[in-house]
Amino acid sequence: MAVYTDVSAEDLGRFLAGYELGELLSYKGIAEGVENSNFYLQTDRDAYFLTLYEKRVRAEDLPFFLGLMDHLSAKGIPCPVPARDRNGNLATTLNGRPAALLTFLDGVSLKKPDAAHCAAVGLALAAMHEAGKDFPIRRANALNIEGWRELEDSTRDGADTVQEGLAGLISGTLGRLETEWPQDLPGGVIHGDLFPDNVLFMDGKVSGLIDFYFACNDAFAYDLAVMLNAWCFEPDGAYNVTKSRALIAAYEQRRPLTLPEISALPTLARGASLRFLLTRLFDWLNPSPTALVRPKDPREYSRKLRFHLKVRSAAEYGL
Amino acid sequence: MAVYTDVSAEDLGRFLAGYELGELLSYKGIAEGVENSNFYLQTDRDAYFLTLYEKRVRAEDLPFFLGLMDHLSAKGIPCPVPARDRNGNLATTLNGRPAALLTFLDGVSLKKPDAAHCAAVGLALAAMHEAGKDFPIRRANALNIEGWRELEDSTRDGADTVQEGLAGLISGTLGRLETEWPQDLPGGVIHGDLFPDNVLFMDGKVSGLIDFYFACNDAFAYDLAVMLNAWCFEPDGAYNVTKSRALIAAYEQRRPLTLPEISALPTLARGASLRFLLTRLFDWLNPSPTALVRPKDPREYSRKLRFHLKVRSAAEYGL
Repeated sequence: MAVYTDVSAEDLGRFLAGYELGELLSYKGIAEGVENSNFYLQTDRDAYFLTLYEKRVRAEDLPFFLGLMDHLSAKGIPCPVPARDRNGNLATTLNGRPAALLTFLDGVSLKKPDAAHCAAVGLALAAMHEAGKDFPIRRANALNIEGWRELEDSTRDGADTVQEGLAGLISGTLGRLETEWPQDLPGGVIHGDLFPDNVLFMDGKVSGLIDFYFACNDAFAYDLAVMLNAWCFEPDGAYNVTKSRALIAAYEQRRPLTLPEISALPTLARGASLRFLLTRLFDWLNPSPTALVRPKDPREYSRKLRFHLKVRSAAEYGL
Repeated sequence: MAVYTDVSAEDLGRFLAGYELGELLSYKGIAEGVENSNFYLQTDRDAYFLTLYEKRVRAEDLPFFLGLMDHLSAKGIPCPVPARDRNGNLATTLNGRPAALLTFLDGVSLKKPDAAHCAAVGLALAAMHEAGKDFPIRRANALNIEGWRELEDSTRDGADTVQEGLAGLISGTLGRLETEWPQDLPGGVIHGDLFPDNVLFMDGKVSGLIDFYFACNDAFAYDLAVMLNAWCFEPDGAYNVTKSRALIAAYEQRRPLTLPEISALPTLARGASLRFLLTRLFDWLNPSPTALVRPKDPREYSRKLRFHLKVRSAAEYGL
């Protein structure tokens, strides 16, 4: 939740003159998004979401991110549609920063999604995976297993100050994953961060998938494993297999899992836990002096990781 | 710019069920407002501005603030209209905090208003003063000259760490104002904080006066003096008498100033400078650990105060 870069009405008016989106009626900085400055913007034609990309999103990745949303929305995936300026550009510049205007989607993200919501979003994930298959731009996953090793290196000394035994849990898990990590699973464009924050619902239906700034090419089933972590644990730490079963079954209605994907699921779930544990731990140990948000507690993910380490087969996820 | 209190879609849905404003389509926390948590909210009928009042706004003042907006908007002043819940209440409760739903106004606040904008807002101020005359609730100005003395007390020790000679400037000015401060000027409900941030424009016209949380009963000309400080200085510190003349002349089109008001104007302008100098200095010396905004530089107002101390008559403001 942040606005790092202020935008004056005068600057915004000049910026909008580069688009054919109507006259500015109002705009407000939005307290949302750890990485960027976001504004809600109303013109006499429609509502838009203006993003100024701060340093954590690299300008050279914008053709992938914006092109992907353009591609997916054209295939019926409910996601923001980036507007083109008068020269046809999706990514432009405002106040010296890369910027984009996206359509503003109706719907709200849920704090307490139930099993039916999990099913709805499982189906939406599979549809996104299918729709992304012919997207021509590729982007490697910067937070893959090699990336985790770098994060492990840089968090090793501080890990036990956050939770006793955390450094050992991380290095032990990472060593195991480096030998067990599945290769050659079916893959394509994944969302990579499909948490409840990033899914909008209207009347129980998914009305929007948002925040594609971790999207990349990787194994489809890893995206599903991220969702098992993000959607299927209760606040008390219990794994809710009813939600998990609903999520996976709905995903499989659209894209059935292969046998190698199913047998790899516990390993993928451990990896997904480790990924969020490591990035949260890094942010916890290195709080940004300009951050307007408190870092999220990494211990939520050490607890989830410990759960997945005990799982013996995908059957325990309700498959 | 802040959201201190998070609101879940589930809680917001229950809250909205207490109103007849339609179904929730979307909402976003707004990075705006130092004092409160604000949300943009879209229902299938209209757009609203939801405010949760944090501790600096006292719940017992809400009938004044919300009642005033209700009163002024009914008289044609472009200001947010507070919605009534099914029981007729303007102030309600959400997540344990006093809360209100206001209509969302079109328009944008300007960073660089010109003389025509100053005239437009001068006229709007006079219209607000006239429209508030029969508002039945009263609220004393908590930031009057007695309040400044308290702030002077609590900032005296730190003032010179911010700017050399600042403690002396403040105590000298305050002593002088305590003998010179005009009594019995025409008064009524004033806005008290009508900075460019708090005025929305559309096509050069005032489309909204917002943020009435410093409104109170005091001298009308003091409200005008606040505006001379907030609208008529250039970024380099120069006083722009063209803007000042335009602002006052437009105000007088609607509500001519009396002779005592005109002769008191330099004193009122010094007082208005001192008021913002003192509150900024206090916030600078006592930064809130939970604040999501950086305090504003008090030295902008010591410079403005020094200008007004040299003014010999209201003629220098373009009267």
